Amino acid sequence: MDSTTRIERTLAAAMHRAEAPCCPPGLLQAMRHAVFPRGSRIRPRLCLAVAAACGEDAPAVGDAAAAAIELMHCASLVHDDLPCFDDAAMRRGRPSVHAAYGQPLAVLAGDALIVLAFQALASGTAAAPARLAPLVSILAGAVGVPRGIVAGQAWECETAADLAQYQQQKTGALFAAATEAGAASAGAAPGPWRLLGERLGEAYQVADDVRDAACEAAEIGKPVGRDLALGRPSAALRFGIDGAIDRLRELAQGAIEAVPACKGAAALRAHILSETQRLLPRELAARAA
Amino acid sequence: MDSTTRIERTLAAAMHRAEAPCCPPGLLQAMRHAVFPRGSRIRPRLCLAVAAACGEDAPAVGDAAAAAIELMHCASLVHDDLPCFDDAAMRRGRPSVHAAYGQPLAVLAGDALIVLAFQALASGTAAAPARLAPLVSILAGAVGVPRGIVAGQAWECETAADLAQYQQQKTGALFAAATEAGAASAGAAPGPWRLLGERLGEAYQVADDVRDAACEAAEIGKPVGRDLALGRPSAALRFGIDGAIDRLRELAQGAIEAVPACKGAAALRAHILSETQRLLPRELAARAA
Repeated sequence: MDSTTRIERTLAAAMHRAEAPCCPPGLLQAMRHAVFPRGSRIRPRLCLAVAAACGEDAPAVGDAAAAAIELMHCASLVHDDLPCFDDAAMRRGRPSVHAAYGQPLAVLAGDALIVLAFQALASGTAAAPARLAPLVSILAGAVGVPRGIVAGQAWECETAADLAQYQQQKTGALFAAATEAGAASAGAAPGPWRLLGERLGEAYQVADDVRDAACEAAEIGKPVGRDLALGRPSAALRFGIDGAIDRLRELAQGAIEAVPACKGAAALRAHILSETQRLLPRELAARAA
Repeated sequence: MDSTTRIERTLAAAMHRAEAPCCPPGLLQAMRHAVFPRGSRIRPRLCLAVAAACGEDAPAVGDAAAAAIELMHCASLVHDDLPCFDDAAMRRGRPSVHAAYGQPLAVLAGDALIVLAFQALASGTAAAPARLAPLVSILAGAVGVPRGIVAGQAWECETAADLAQYQQQKTGALFAAATEAGAASAGAAPGPWRLLGERLGEAYQVADDVRDAACEAAEIGKPVGRDLALGRPSAALRFGIDGAIDRLRELAQGAIEAVPACKGAAALRAHILSETQRLLPRELAARAA
């Protein structure tokens, strides 16, 4: 089964378990809206690619780890889009969750998705229970305090923030968790896999900054120019668009070099090359060459 | 060590692990504000009382379970108080988290506390790793979908809600998790402990409704009359204050009868009696006698 199918099936199964008449229908709709139809699923695909490179022996564990990573990502988007943060009315080319269902259900859908991620780990590790604790720690570390997504987002509430630290927490942390969790789900030590995830996360963030600064809204499915409008740190604003694109190329190359020695290293490097080449629209990528 | 000391130490240790220079100080302050100084800690004390009744053999696991339950409770208060829900400016006799730190940090503090709860479970179960999966499932079930706190809160966004189901999810679920997690932390089967938690949760909710309808704000440290003002389901509005107090007495008695056979049953019954007698201010409790 290809990784996209695995991810969509696991996410659908997790959401399906939530569907009971005792659950308010509006909350379920808001959660579904946040998770489906799929975005790029770049993090869970990375998680499964690392699990495969590590010689995955318990696919249900990898599936659970990948789904948990994606549920956390979806939750963070729902809360980031809230009026008290980005106030974004659009996401993935359609209304954001709070625009479609109101702020109360957006807050609750984000909360419920965070919880569902841990629930997916607990139920998905039945075949290898010793892997649950490291996976919970990896996931919690990537999302919570002191250095996860929530900490990164909270730097936006401070008067000064270090750009590298802010981006590492807000974006890099979940990419690093994707590679670490991929390894841990296959019973491998997660530590050596962290650098790969960090570099990919930074590359992804730089690409996002460039798209925000240089693209049209229709191309990326959400409002553009938000970093400038909201006074947020941005690699494109700091280094200029060409400088940011150069940085992105360095990071992509650094990611490929960061793949630890393992059986499936060659296939994984090919996956990373293909993913990083798709981070920017063709005409922007050409500008860097 | 008494249970209050155990709970405060475990919560302090969990917060301490979050304190690093890489974490935005405003977020840490908002989280601390939500957790300290202590509220009644009724849920974690119940969790530890059940663990003791079950012949607790790994106190660190009970500590982690109790702290995780309380962190979830604190998180739910922070999000419930937000302007898009109760819009409560006061909590425990001082400003609510969003009143003190703003909405963005209140949303993020709640998120971070949810994650911290699972982190506490993962790190606290090192001595008995097989207990992690059931504890994660119990906690996630009590907070998420389809029948946890978040589902209960989301019924407030629907046009019609069943009072019993709403209260079971919004309040009963975490009390049931407290008793189930207490048992699971001691290596006992959690199922037989659920009814006790459900009855205590319902008793607590009825007492809260009565206080909201009959007390002065200064007595309970938060605004009163909110159920009526917000059109929320309330036992006091439905049954009248005297009817609700009668119901509370029935539930307290039912809770004592629901204690499963175990070594420490007598001490646990005494704990429950003492706790339920303190649910209402003296003059209201006298009105029921």
